[in-house]
Amino acid sequence: MRILIGNHIDPSIRARGDMRAWTQRLFWFARPGDLLILCCEPDTAFVGYTLAHTGVKREELTVLAAPPGAWGDRLLDPASLTVLAFVEQVRAALGPDGPSAVSEVFALWPSAAVARLADTLGVADRFPGAAFFGQGGGEIGNNKANFRALAAAAGVPILPGRICRSRTEAIEATGALLETSPSGAVVVKQAHNGAGVGNQLLVRDAEMAVGHVGARHLHHLARGLDDVAAYWAERWPWASGEGRWPVVVEEFAPGADAVYSEHYASDDGTRATETGRLLYVGRRLSHQVVPLDGVTEPTRAALLDGGTRLADAYRAFGYRGHLSADALVLPGGSVVFTEVNAQVSGSLHIYQSIAHGIVDVAAAPPRQVVEYHVPPTWAVPGFAAFLAALDELGLAYDPATRTGVIVSMPAIPLAPGEPVQFVFCIAYDPAEGHVGAFDRLDARFAAVPAGTYDASQHIGTSGAVSFSS
Amino acid sequence: MRILIGNHIDPSIRARGDMRAWTQRLFWFARPGDLLILCCEPDTAFVGYTLAHTGVKREELTVLAAPPGAWGDRLLDPASLTVLAFVEQVRAALGPDGPSAVSEVFALWPSAAVARLADTLGVADRFPGAAFFGQGGGEIGNNKANFRALAAAAGVPILPGRICRSRTEAIEATGALLETSPSGAVVVKQAHNGAGVGNQLLVRDAEMAVGHVGARHLHHLARGLDDVAAYWAERWPWASGEGRWPVVVEEFAPGADAVYSEHYASDDGTRATETGRLLYVGRRLSHQVVPLDGVTEPTRAALLDGGTRLADAYRAFGYRGHLSADALVLPGGSVVFTEVNAQVSGSLHIYQSIAHGIVDVAAAPPRQVVEYHVPPTWAVPGFAAFLAALDELGLAYDPATRTGVIVSMPAIPLAPGEPVQFVFCIAYDPAEGHVGAFDRLDARFAAVPAGTYDASQHIGTSGAVSFSS
Repeated sequence: MRILIGNHIDPSIRARGDMRAWTQRLFWFARPGDLLILCCEPDTAFVGYTLAHTGVKREELTVLAAPPGAWGDRLLDPASLTVLAFVEQVRAALGPDGPSAVSEVFALWPSAAVARLADTLGVADRFPGAAFFGQGGGEIGNNKANFRALAAAAGVPILPGRICRSRTEAIEATGALLETSPSGAVVVKQAHNGAGVGNQLLVRDAEMAVGHVGARHLHHLARGLDDVAAYWAERWPWASGEGRWPVVVEEFAPGADAVYSEHYASDDGTRATETGRLLYVGRRLSHQVVPLDGVTEPTRAALLDGGTRLADAYRAFGYRGHLSADALVLPGGSVVFTEVNAQVSGSLHIYQSIAHGIVDVAAAPPRQVVEYHVPPTWAVPGFAAFLAALDELGLAYDPATRTGVIVSMPAIPLAPGEPVQFVFCIAYDPAEGHVGAFDRLDARFAAVPAGTYDASQHIGTSGAVSFSS
Repeated sequence: MRILIGNHIDPSIRARGDMRAWTQRLFWFARPGDLLILCCEPDTAFVGYTLAHTGVKREELTVLAAPPGAWGDRLLDPASLTVLAFVEQVRAALGPDGPSAVSEVFALWPSAAVARLADTLGVADRFPGAAFFGQGGGEIGNNKANFRALAAAAGVPILPGRICRSRTEAIEATGALLETSPSGAVVVKQAHNGAGVGNQLLVRDAEMAVGHVGARHLHHLARGLDDVAAYWAERWPWASGEGRWPVVVEEFAPGADAVYSEHYASDDGTRATETGRLLYVGRRLSHQVVPLDGVTEPTRAALLDGGTRLADAYRAFGYRGHLSADALVLPGGSVVFTEVNAQVSGSLHIYQSIAHGIVDVAAAPPRQVVEYHVPPTWAVPGFAAFLAALDELGLAYDPATRTGVIVSMPAIPLAPGEPVQFVFCIAYDPAEGHVGAFDRLDARFAAVPAGTYDASQHIGTSGAVSFSS
């Protein structure tokens, strides 16, 4: 058996809103005999739906909700994992063979609290990297500022940029980069955030095309250093988390494509697991596609090479587990890396469980999988209503054709009575693409006029329900 | 020629007080032809004294003071290094061969600003680790929290402890460690500080011997978790730098000796450079001795082995240059590591320049070198007065006997008209020890009654004149 922990970045590093739905993607990874630990009771409809796809029986799994801590059942309080009564519950769930039955401890985020639980249970040797993570190593590998230093040391290409530890440094760095940046634009990045939510694009040219960029926030700079100083006077506390974190200021590369290369780091070495593409609409993460297509062989090789070097570098300092190296393909085809997420990303369930497990994209005829965020313009009443619509439209996943929609997350309303938000996959024939299927769903559910929804409440934001890592 | 930069940790990471004296230890490293960059005009008496010992002629060196920045001439403002007019001054100092004359860029602290200066001059390939340091890598290698994770990953022994990112975590960690710590005591460590100034010892037993410990601050805990919570309510902002840094909470090991192993990491590998011993009096760094003596061979081997593994680990993620692995020898002789300072330590000038260069401790008959901080009980009127006293007492360094006193730093008053503070080395016959020489100086200068001086103004503190890295 394995112990799977549906956690997320420690709230002491980055406070999230409500991770109940997002962390239940854990069910895509479950195998018979596994013990799953969540922050909440699982969503019965989603669990039944998921297990029907993976072929695991509900009674083959043990699911425990950790005791509510500082955040109730919305977030897993790391301290809850080692509450004595809960540890006893976990021990009891190991069955008659006790700790020796445990083959692996797997966590969505490599928290020190997971290492402590593994240690308490006597299974620390089955949590890869336990000693490193037990001393806060998870933070080192998930910091966008550290990334730039580690990538530079590994000789992996990054964009010109700087790490800033004070507002003064940020003003200086922004001014210097605006001088030399061909685009006259820079990206400001929080050290800890995801899906572009912690990125702000500073542009001088208000006409610049930026909708495809993974930067939730946009600021138009007037000419001159005064405007740069005014920007930082306002945004330094946001960018640095009130001074807690270094801030990345990086040249903006217009017209680039966002791609990633995922890897697994074990005690024995690293191996590449999958590559894919991220697509942003209105500077929000809209959908992602696996396996990666539409790149030349040299570009693919550069992505894999840089990703491998980063995985090796992260492994060298102690990281173990899955990691995602994010990159941009520049208009000329060259590849520059932008960050590493040394955790279970928002892509692993798509390629490992759905694309390779259920759909088997590499079989003949080939298939591809896209995962969409429900767009902010859709009004979906609920999970059952969405499944019913899929049936009606003939869009439900069909194992015979290996095409159709698989909902990847529980669908829960942002507020009681509101439409639900979630993510869903479409398996499709690469020759046909996924736009046809998406458009039919769009025609059915697009009921919220653009401009009337609150962008800050859209999926992927922190403070609300999160559908990103 | 080499470019030597007398800098210190970037003020955006850790604000220091007045580093003018401490950074002038750079002169111990100077060789004919070198260019030295300081935050201030050098102390003429000290420079003449040092060069008389090293045999370098003043006219063989070029010394530039960087333009005053945010801290005047007390601290080197990293931004000053790339001020255009200053870069031109540096260029002019390179001589007719220009950048090709530069064999190495050497900095006391691996600042991104040094990498930018090297880059601007076209000599980045001669600043080892330039790409890594240019992206803030210096901070990664000098963070006591990161150290614990990196050491754990490298399998190097550390004391039980935790990394805390919030007050809640600190309360939990302190409570848990006090439960299991045989001493009933823990050490709290700021991520960035030096010479024990950022350490606080929490003890339940008021009788415990702690004077020899490198922890400037002491707190007596009553029984119970309430007192732990009260401590953290008061000290979390201090320990975390207002939430900026993770905090280390570590078991306290009574009766341990503080030792270190220094290493050099280059592109080709690492090599051990020297081992030594730190001695604290009244929980303040009092003196250090090189080479290390008084340990068994297994202890020495364990120190070298762990230091080498740490040096290799730091090299693996990108660090280049000198580093110091600090450790404790426990009463049973085993070695546990406590931090790595990946910068030019306060020991390099002692062993590289003075002990091995001037005294040649390994020649026959063998010699040893101790460096003392002027104790807070001494009232030394000035540099010349101290040298005169050395002459009178027959304690000035004598190349014939290879024994005697070498002052290692400029002697400057903490405030105008106050006695001066500095550090000085005594070269001695290991069979005789250094206490005799020290006692004669103590008899001469101990004029401040114990209990009447302000401990917070003692050397090594931040906020005042600093004599530590």
